[in-house]
Amino acid sequence: MIPTIPGREAILEAAIRIRPYIHRTPVLTCAAVNLKTDAELYFKCENFQKTGAFKARGATNAVLSLEKHELSNGIITHSSGNHAAALALAARYRHTPAYIIMPSNSSKVKIEAVKSYGGQITFCEPTLEAREETLKRVQARTAAIEIHPYNDYRIIAGQASAALELIEEYPGLDLIMAPVGGGGLLSGTALSVHYFAAGKKVIAAEPAEADDAYRSFYQHNFIPALNPQTIADGLRTSLGTLTFPIIREFVSEIITVDENGIVDAMRLIWERMKIIVEPSSAVPLAALLAHPDIFRGKKTGIILSGGNVDLSNLPW
Amino acid sequence: MIPTIPGREAILEAAIRIRPYIHRTPVLTCAAVNLKTDAELYFKCENFQKTGAFKARGATNAVLSLEKHELSNGIITHSSGNHAAALALAARYRHTPAYIIMPSNSSKVKIEAVKSYGGQITFCEPTLEAREETLKRVQARTAAIEIHPYNDYRIIAGQASAALELIEEYPGLDLIMAPVGGGGLLSGTALSVHYFAAGKKVIAAEPAEADDAYRSFYQHNFIPALNPQTIADGLRTSLGTLTFPIIREFVSEIITVDENGIVDAMRLIWERMKIIVEPSSAVPLAALLAHPDIFRGKKTGIILSGGNVDLSNLPW
Repeated sequence: MIPTIPGREAILEAAIRIRPYIHRTPVLTCAAVNLKTDAELYFKCENFQKTGAFKARGATNAVLSLEKHELSNGIITHSSGNHAAALALAARYRHTPAYIIMPSNSSKVKIEAVKSYGGQITFCEPTLEAREETLKRVQARTAAIEIHPYNDYRIIAGQASAALELIEEYPGLDLIMAPVGGGGLLSGTALSVHYFAAGKKVIAAEPAEADDAYRSFYQHNFIPALNPQTIADGLRTSLGTLTFPIIREFVSEIITVDENGIVDAMRLIWERMKIIVEPSSAVPLAALLAHPDIFRGKKTGIILSGGNVDLSNLPW
Repeated sequence: MIPTIPGREAILEAAIRIRPYIHRTPVLTCAAVNLKTDAELYFKCENFQKTGAFKARGATNAVLSLEKHELSNGIITHSSGNHAAALALAARYRHTPAYIIMPSNSSKVKIEAVKSYGGQITFCEPTLEAREETLKRVQARTAAIEIHPYNDYRIIAGQASAALELIEEYPGLDLIMAPVGGGGLLSGTALSVHYFAAGKKVIAAEPAEADDAYRSFYQHNFIPALNPQTIADGLRTSLGTLTFPIIREFVSEIITVDENGIVDAMRLIWERMKIIVEPSSAVPLAALLAHPDIFRGKKTGIILSGGNVDLSNLPW
């Protein structure tokens, strides 16, 4: 395991390691959304990523980083869904079982995805405590090796590759936005911007209903989430002890948004960009729409984190 | 007006003429859909086109082809929606009014789009007769010049540019599929394949509930549609007298699909490709799913015609 915050080389190595297994996702622009926001937006489409979310990057990097003998009893994790599917797929690349602990309120489409990649699911109550306890129980039985969804430097280095690609393609961006849940994507994004686009800003966006990152960031103290109920199901988790210090050092600002703002931004992306994103992906655009002054005229990269939604249960 | 079937040069000229005004849309692939169909599919994403549909190509070509004096009283058309929006936008480029006759059962999102581009709408009964009568009435008042949605060689030449781009990017395709309504897209596609990918096949797909093209094609005789009720709202129109002869000569086959097949194919595209397409766009994939033997192992281009759907009124 990498023992320190991923450096420039660790991120480049991760990007090279996972390249054969992931998509280099497109960056889309939309004249109608630019007009509405009075900004110049570049959307990095991780909704088109393998398994439908950026999580394939980190999970693939972590699993490919393991030695063969470490994989003999399978891998295990807890996840509300996207990391679970990504890990199940990555485990398949290494021909080892994936044991997945999922909160019982995970979306149906995410549960189905995990099953389709051969993941073996155990459900639990939707609290961090229950997730960790259930994981320990299954791990005691299987001796599988844990791959945490975000509190793992190999995961962070993998997630960093999304912003790295965006920066390579658009070096002239003024700032980059990412949503924050556990902080894997955000900390990886912040590191890539620090190493490969020095001087550019990273602004995070978070649901006000799950604002542990916002409070931790501005109160300079780790404050865990307590079973938050936001529609952005990918962002209900607490920040990690490894992700928080990176975020504190390399992120400029965290903006919170209300639930209606998330749904409106999601619908705007669907209607005008003709792409499917899940609510978590819409959180940065919601922040931008709520605070246009910060972004006016700025070349802003936005990482669309995923596209796994239950089409039979849309929020409008 | 171009008096004969568009030749190779007319299509190349149209492509060059409209290039500054339209998107060169991406071609997407999807491992999951390939696996399900046992074919190799290349989706030309006209759902990402300006105004959300391929119609921007033909309408822009037609309007840009007009002399200034021809535009002094505006332009007029009848359309269930996508041509209407495309023509309204093209009229704006030439600073002339667009009078749009729309059937009363046009989808709300398409009506809103026409309004947003400044089109002046007159509603009518959803029959070809009513559309043509209403058009004549408004034209008598305005003296606007008519741009028919598909029965116009300038339109056909413009629509042909979508397949031209697809062929340029993927010259190794075995066949290309397009949906057929009035036949503008299909006849343009067939001409581009004839000129620029000689020997490759064009297979059309049509809703069984609006199968006038299928019946006309196989009975060698023009048979008009009689107020068909398919969910594929872009394909409810009758073939044109100019499009039918081209289709008869240059299209290999027309396959009809039932309504459930269209909805299933549409949902498959949404779920696995994470892009928004309207029902008409899903008709070729529905045909492919219903007749896998024809397409097994074939490199098949599919033109996704548009992405304008009412998100509050989905068919599942």
